[in-house]
Amino acid sequence: MMALVEHAVDVSFGDCDPAGIVFYPNYFRWMDATFHRLLQERAGGHARLCRDLDAVGIGLMDVGMNFRMPVREGQRIQLRLTGIDWGSRSLTLRYEAETDGRTVFEGHEKRGIFVMQGGRLTAAEVEPLKVMIQAKDS
Amino acid sequence: MMALVEHAVDVSFGDCDPAGIVFYPNYFRWMDATFHRLLQERAGGHARLCRDLDAVGIGLMDVGMNFRMPVREGQRIQLRLTGIDWGSRSLTLRYEAETDGRTVFEGHEKRGIFVMQGGRLTAAEVEPLKVMIQAKDS
Amino acid sequence: MMALVEHAVDVSFGDCDPAGIVFYPNYFRWMDATFHRLLQERAGGHARLCRDLDAVGIGLMDVGMNFRMPVREGQRIQLRLTGIDWGSRSLTLRYEAETDGRTVFEGHEKRGIFVMQGGRLTAAEVEPLKVMIQAKDS
Amino acid sequence: MMALVEHAVDVSFGDCDPAGIVFYPNYFRWMDATFHRLLQERAGGHARLCRDLDAVGIGLMDVGMNFRMPVREGQRIQLRLTGIDWGSRSLTLRYEAETDGRTVFEGHEKRGIFVMQGGRLTAAEVEPLKVMIQAKDS
Repeated sequence: MMALVEHAVDVSFGDCDPAGIVFYPNYFRWMDATFHRLLQERAGGHARLCRDLDAVGIGLMDVGMNFRMPVREGQRIQLRLTGIDWGSRSLTLRYEAETDGRTVFEGHEKRGIFVMQGGRLTAAEVEPLKVMIQAKDS
Repeated sequence: MMALVEHAVDVSFGDCDPAGIVFYPNYFRWMDATFHRLLQERAGGHARLCRDLDAVGIGLMDVGMNFRMPVREGQRIQLRLTGIDWGSRSLTLRYEAETDGRTVFEGHEKRGIFVMQGGRLTAAEVEPLKVMIQAKDS
Repeated sequence: MMALVEHAVDVSFGDCDPAGIVFYPNYFRWMDATFHRLLQERAGGHARLCRDLDAVGIGLMDVGMNFRMPVREGQRIQLRLTGIDWGSRSLTLRYEAETDGRTVFEGHEKRGIFVMQGGRLTAAEVEPLKVMIQAKDS
Repeated sequence: MMALVEHAVDVSFGDCDPAGIVFYPNYFRWMDATFHRLLQERAGGHARLCRDLDAVGIGLMDVGMNFRMPVREGQRIQLRLTGIDWGSRSLTLRYEAETDGRTVFEGHEKRGIFVMQGGRLTAAEVEPLKVMIQAKDS
């Protein structure tokens, strides 16, 4: 399957819990790192993007993950950003992760571009980010 | 609101990202810690529970979180386990977190009790755990 | 023993590794959090201190830790900042941690106040921070 | 310089703190991962090594790190295990990390092989591990 960006993780001893499997918050660290790799490749990274859009940050609105199998030390996980659903003031990123051809998890992140407006944090229109990210596909 | 268990977290500098707000995977670390506090208080902790139920672990099937506001260094977050929906071979835990009377996030964890059966990891019936957790309410 | 600041940590399941004991990088997270509690209590926090001193950050130069015993899920660790050695352009913070009256670790952090000077990051004199921190002892 | 094992890390947004630089406990996560890569390559991994040596774990006795420069999101760090000093009941591992040809940190980990003996955790002789690790050099 085609992916907008891929991110491989070698699971280490310290990523695992006393049951010997990946401590699940680490999956979110790796999913977030996959998103930031997209920003690096297509928008110059988070800091530059915030300067360009006069934004405070590209923050989370909602996140979820469905787990299919436990993963242990020494296994390599391949994360893929498989698609983006563009809303008006949010974008939803869809991820899949696999190891040895088997699905580890499916997840999503709904994010907004947050700007200060009248002293309040507000979700701005995401169109400028959409243009940047889609530019490199053509 | 009544909670089955509460867990307070003082947000530190190192919990925050370059945008100055909590790096979101940390919220899952704290939600997981709230669940393990429940196991400590009502089932003798994860290790003893696994021995009692002949289980490998109480693992995740699905997890989600909805974010309402960013939190910064120096703020105290109060996490609450507000309810448990008992299925046959899974339980879904519902959480809320607030700071200064405002909701920070709402989240859920769907968990199973995993046992080895015929060489395969299988979700066992959760009734024994339900009995332990509800015993202390009466 | 008198401490400049104390910080209690309840060790959770997810803080531990497949050997069932605290994954050691977490001790550094907690030692760092103890330092930032000092800044909160005596200098208004890291962000305000940086504004007051026109600094980029209070960063690390050297760190070390000596481990005396393993700690498991469910134990409470008490961290104490026991002393500060003030240099001219650095300060060295000394820490101790214990559980149930037994020493868990002894550690130190050597930190500098980093400022931009002529386009380069330089360690500034720490005297202004010393004055702030010692003011509340008198 | 020759290294016993190397480990590359792409620094992500979430590895950094509000000052925009790597939150230092993460360096210890990566140093520990470098050690566990050595165990993977030369001793079959931590779990198998513990079975082979009838040990509880290869735990830390002492650790230290000297920082030379801050690192930011988007930079790649190359960690190297540069040498091992073998004691009788401990081994000391020496590490270096660099980015773009400049040293980021130098660090060490003093570790022991911990076994249960008469109901107490004791550091065993490290000779069997030394043999395994040096076997693949010849």
